[in-house]
Amino acid sequence: MYIVLKESATYEEILKLKKFIKETGHGALEILDGSIKKIGIMGRKSGLTKESLKEFGIVENVLQIAKPFKFVSREFKNEDTVIEIKGRKIGSTDLVLMAGPCSIENREMIIEIARIVKENGGEYLRGGAFKPRTSPYDFQGLGEEGLKYMREACDIYDLLMVTEVMDTRDIEIIEKYTDIFQVGARNMQNFSLLKELGKTKKPVLLKRGLSATIRDFLMAAEYIVAFGNKEVILCERGIRTFEIATRNTVDINGIALLKEKTHLPIIIDASHGTGKRSLVEPVTLGCVLAGADGAMVEVHKNPSCALSDGDQTLTFEEFIILCKKLKKTLEFKESLKCL
Amino acid sequence: MYIVLKESATYEEILKLKKFIKETGHGALEILDGSIKKIGIMGRKSGLTKESLKEFGIVENVLQIAKPFKFVSREFKNEDTVIEIKGRKIGSTDLVLMAGPCSIENREMIIEIARIVKENGGEYLRGGAFKPRTSPYDFQGLGEEGLKYMREACDIYDLLMVTEVMDTRDIEIIEKYTDIFQVGARNMQNFSLLKELGKTKKPVLLKRGLSATIRDFLMAAEYIVAFGNKEVILCERGIRTFEIATRNTVDINGIALLKEKTHLPIIIDASHGTGKRSLVEPVTLGCVLAGADGAMVEVHKNPSCALSDGDQTLTFEEFIILCKKLKKTLEFKESLKCL
Amino acid sequence: MYIVLKESATYEEILKLKKFIKETGHGALEILDGSIKKIGIMGRKSGLTKESLKEFGIVENVLQIAKPFKFVSREFKNEDTVIEIKGRKIGSTDLVLMAGPCSIENREMIIEIARIVKENGGEYLRGGAFKPRTSPYDFQGLGEEGLKYMREACDIYDLLMVTEVMDTRDIEIIEKYTDIFQVGARNMQNFSLLKELGKTKKPVLLKRGLSATIRDFLMAAEYIVAFGNKEVILCERGIRTFEIATRNTVDINGIALLKEKTHLPIIIDASHGTGKRSLVEPVTLGCVLAGADGAMVEVHKNPSCALSDGDQTLTFEEFIILCKKLKKTLEFKESLKCL
Amino acid sequence: MYIVLKESATYEEILKLKKFIKETGHGALEILDGSIKKIGIMGRKSGLTKESLKEFGIVENVLQIAKPFKFVSREFKNEDTVIEIKGRKIGSTDLVLMAGPCSIENREMIIEIARIVKENGGEYLRGGAFKPRTSPYDFQGLGEEGLKYMREACDIYDLLMVTEVMDTRDIEIIEKYTDIFQVGARNMQNFSLLKELGKTKKPVLLKRGLSATIRDFLMAAEYIVAFGNKEVILCERGIRTFEIATRNTVDINGIALLKEKTHLPIIIDASHGTGKRSLVEPVTLGCVLAGADGAMVEVHKNPSCALSDGDQTLTFEEFIILCKKLKKTLEFKESLKCL
Repeated sequence: MYIVLKESATYEEILKLKKFIKETGHGALEILDGSIKKIGIMGRKSGLTKESLKEFGIVENVLQIAKPFKFVSREFKNEDTVIEIKGRKIGSTDLVLMAGPCSIENREMIIEIARIVKENGGEYLRGGAFKPRTSPYDFQGLGEEGLKYMREACDIYDLLMVTEVMDTRDIEIIEKYTDIFQVGARNMQNFSLLKELGKTKKPVLLKRGLSATIRDFLMAAEYIVAFGNKEVILCERGIRTFEIATRNTVDINGIALLKEKTHLPIIIDASHGTGKRSLVEPVTLGCVLAGADGAMVEVHKNPSCALSDGDQTLTFEEFIILCKKLKKTLEFKESLKCL
Repeated sequence: MYIVLKESATYEEILKLKKFIKETGHGALEILDGSIKKIGIMGRKSGLTKESLKEFGIVENVLQIAKPFKFVSREFKNEDTVIEIKGRKIGSTDLVLMAGPCSIENREMIIEIARIVKENGGEYLRGGAFKPRTSPYDFQGLGEEGLKYMREACDIYDLLMVTEVMDTRDIEIIEKYTDIFQVGARNMQNFSLLKELGKTKKPVLLKRGLSATIRDFLMAAEYIVAFGNKEVILCERGIRTFEIATRNTVDINGIALLKEKTHLPIIIDASHGTGKRSLVEPVTLGCVLAGADGAMVEVHKNPSCALSDGDQTLTFEEFIILCKKLKKTLEFKESLKCL
Repeated sequence: MYIVLKESATYEEILKLKKFIKETGHGALEILDGSIKKIGIMGRKSGLTKESLKEFGIVENVLQIAKPFKFVSREFKNEDTVIEIKGRKIGSTDLVLMAGPCSIENREMIIEIARIVKENGGEYLRGGAFKPRTSPYDFQGLGEEGLKYMREACDIYDLLMVTEVMDTRDIEIIEKYTDIFQVGARNMQNFSLLKELGKTKKPVLLKRGLSATIRDFLMAAEYIVAFGNKEVILCERGIRTFEIATRNTVDINGIALLKEKTHLPIIIDASHGTGKRSLVEPVTLGCVLAGADGAMVEVHKNPSCALSDGDQTLTFEEFIILCKKLKKTLEFKESLKCL
Repeated sequence: MYIVLKESATYEEILKLKKFIKETGHGALEILDGSIKKIGIMGRKSGLTKESLKEFGIVENVLQIAKPFKFVSREFKNEDTVIEIKGRKIGSTDLVLMAGPCSIENREMIIEIARIVKENGGEYLRGGAFKPRTSPYDFQGLGEEGLKYMREACDIYDLLMVTEVMDTRDIEIIEKYTDIFQVGARNMQNFSLLKELGKTKKPVLLKRGLSATIRDFLMAAEYIVAFGNKEVILCERGIRTFEIATRNTVDINGIALLKEKTHLPIIIDASHGTGKRSLVEPVTLGCVLAGADGAMVEVHKNPSCALSDGDQTLTFEEFIILCKKLKKTLEFKESLKCL
């Protein structure tokens, strides 16, 4: 259920209405859909009726959303959500290219990669300090030490930091360092984690699960929004299919469909999506043209020495070329809108 | 790496050896493989060499395991693992039928189901207090209140309690009530959770993820074992495929293959595996004949009124027939071994 | 659309009705559903109305079938279809175990396998003369020469012959030799082939396609029936999923579901279904208990020398044990019905 | 096995060499890889050794191909294959947009669509006369009548005709009318059909099977080439996955990978690939940027009245916009090569 407010509604009137909603035990999610103010109502306890809401003079209309995913749908908010962090925008025409190593290995390496990212126009540094590894015997990340190195690298080069959170108990510590929380594919339906991230104040980059349908994916995003955090970035990173020539199968259909169904920004991670260095560039560019708002890639000075995922990691040279082509592709995409 | 001990090794000698291993920063997992005593060594830091181990007189041999999953493999331990809880055995010829509702709805319902389970020879009560739900708007479970009702029901009828844990923060509270921790399919690769459960003292029922390969599944079990908990029960509950006529696709091949590759017990959950009440019986019996050591099913007095998963839930009548047929099937399976 | 006939209908009256139907350009498929006589009407041209049919005194009722698959559905015919060939029955409690090599390699080998099959109670010999091979460079089969050897082997040991047809142009020649046509998984939706087989007089064993849904599978069977051939045997042989530890994933859910939806007999081919010799026995027995009416397996004197599919082929010793266990399983399955 | 010829080799010398190869029972496939002349040798009978070939003075080298797919691999021929038909090129920078209805419904409709296609720069008309339909009760196409209408439409507007062949028996009649044979996804492994098409003289557009791996796909193309027809156009049209929000999942990874592995041209059919009209444009453009050499789409004056596949069919208006954008995308793709 959501409320469409009258244009004339004042700050005080809206505050009063939200207070009323909260007193009935519901959450109130205020958003701006283009020039239209709306309030999404979270929860469905009795004691909050359409009628009681309509008694407020500023309420233009009270509407239901037919879809299972509600507040992430275009039905609730038609206008694209643009997430702004320290002056950079995700979901607009700005270049969004999150790059960095799979794992932070040491201070020097993350600082060097940060420099390369910045010099080529990147604004986001990605890297894992807490790593979800299939085997208990593989490198599990540097933990807080890694977070510190990464924060330092981001501060030196004025980059935004993106790093993964795997455990509700780590949210507090990671929040001290990062600009964007990343939720990995294997945790896409870790509902406890999603709920807690819904209560934080920082954007969440949510990766699609290996076998998550588009509906599952949107429902997972809905969890975060329903618990109060409107800033969710979706990330397509390939689904698991019978095809074994590539690590995963990037769902380009899904990207185009998500742009129809949700107002949230979407980025493509073709490193995990393909698992093969030479495919990262064509698949990234193709997916951006099909609708993705940006990309995430793995970069390493010497991929063959990376502690994890070397096969899918770009060299600095490959990354520099991708940056150029991605900028051109974003411009070309804009130009097509005028046809 | 693991050690095969000489038959003559005394308790004190073994203790001394384990102390030495731990002092080098490794874990030591003592097991009995038939009549052979072994010690699995967890971790791979330097400072612990084959040579240093062989200096202990009770060490017969020091061996490597070629597989990525080590301590769950038949290579490490050939004999079937039998998990004994309060006198009941999982992984032997005992009837293992874990039954109960998807969600605990109230005290009365869980007590009534417990009675039916017990009267028909069941020894395990399953039910969810913390529920992983695809939608944030669906019933999320009764929480600790549900745990209390379930414990009470189990105590009245002398049943073993199986309930799901979704969050590392809930382990402590759930451990107070349950006999067996359940890890749901969506958390199969929640490695933080697996590690923490590895440190507990109660058996863990690990459900296969929707898109987990057999290798992924065994690696997830390996996490729990590698952190110290040897009592893992695998649960096949269907994988996600293109087939839409059933909710999931039960992987009977996987069951037969797991029996070859691992010594851990395996049960089949055909309720989630099929999503269709009428298929639960044939698929359960077929999978048990193919190798499963037991089964898990959803039962409700009135499935159409269940708060979740009614379509796949057995009525009391259907459950009673399944109990009889499952007992016969286990006997028949034993009789085939003599052919 | 189909007609339920009055019990009193005489042969001549039925003939007259069928003549009328055919004159309107429709096919008429006469079946016996338990003790009820029915006529299925194929095609949907104008000029044949319910009313015109009801004018015939022997017509009890004219009904529509709601499902897309019509004449293969339980809605049309509730009673199990039993296919009888030279005194053997498929779809009853008779042991159905179709065994033989993947490819017929020479005269001696097929005669020797025929002997083993017969001595252990088998009644069907399978083997490929025309082979569908993924690579144009692999052995493509002996062609008609292979058919001759196989017919000879079947005649010596009084076995029924099952062999694959891949091309509409080969139907005539194969029909001269075989007792049962086999349609391979890769041709399940070769609709030209299905139509032509619908016009033949011999039973058709239809293998499920690697990515065929249960609905696709039944629609393919419907093609054969709709063109006039009521004797279709369905064969589950595994579907293609993300799992790579086994060649395919046997869909035990699908077997149980097919028994609900269709009156046609179903057999399990666990050789192709698993791709692994050691899994053939447990998966075959499990699927038969779950509903399959019989099994197909690959057998070879020396699997490691087989010209194709050696890894999934049973030795003579393994085959002999499987025969015994399969007989016991069929008896056990019958005994469960009395519970 | 293949031969690299010396630059100096004359027509007569090559002829003599090919005659020798054929006399040993092998096929000889002459190609030009850039400026290098090669001869691929089909078959692997004894009697043709490296040594015997090297005795010919024009033979520079005799090489083996390590891959299972040989003559379609970049290893055999590094340069892109460009297929030229009546002055139009597939596999170069020319616009390749094959458009038309799913089924040819009547003469007027196909002529009207032909006009629209031509007016907007299209050079290829696609349409089905023989239709593979999942249900025997659905419209099966007009047959030869449809071929005649389509040929007429192509002749009026100077378009190239693309139409499906489903049965070896129909090749001869279809060859009279069409410019390009189309093999549908369900027949991708109809090896009899592939072999016969390998013996024809017209290009073959081969659609990827619903569950075909990239390797399966290339092996199917290899069949056609190995039987003598070098002009194969690959068509990605979506694979079957668990995702149900779209009809199929377009494998953009596969397109990028195919461009690495094979010299054959590849086109994208996003109509079947997505099953949803609104996704056809973004997915087509994205796949072309990722590597596809062209596209195939379904177009109909009034998609909601189409006899088949209306949901995925473009209106004339949508088609006209797609044409413009596709041209721009091809130019943009070329421009990226200069970066």
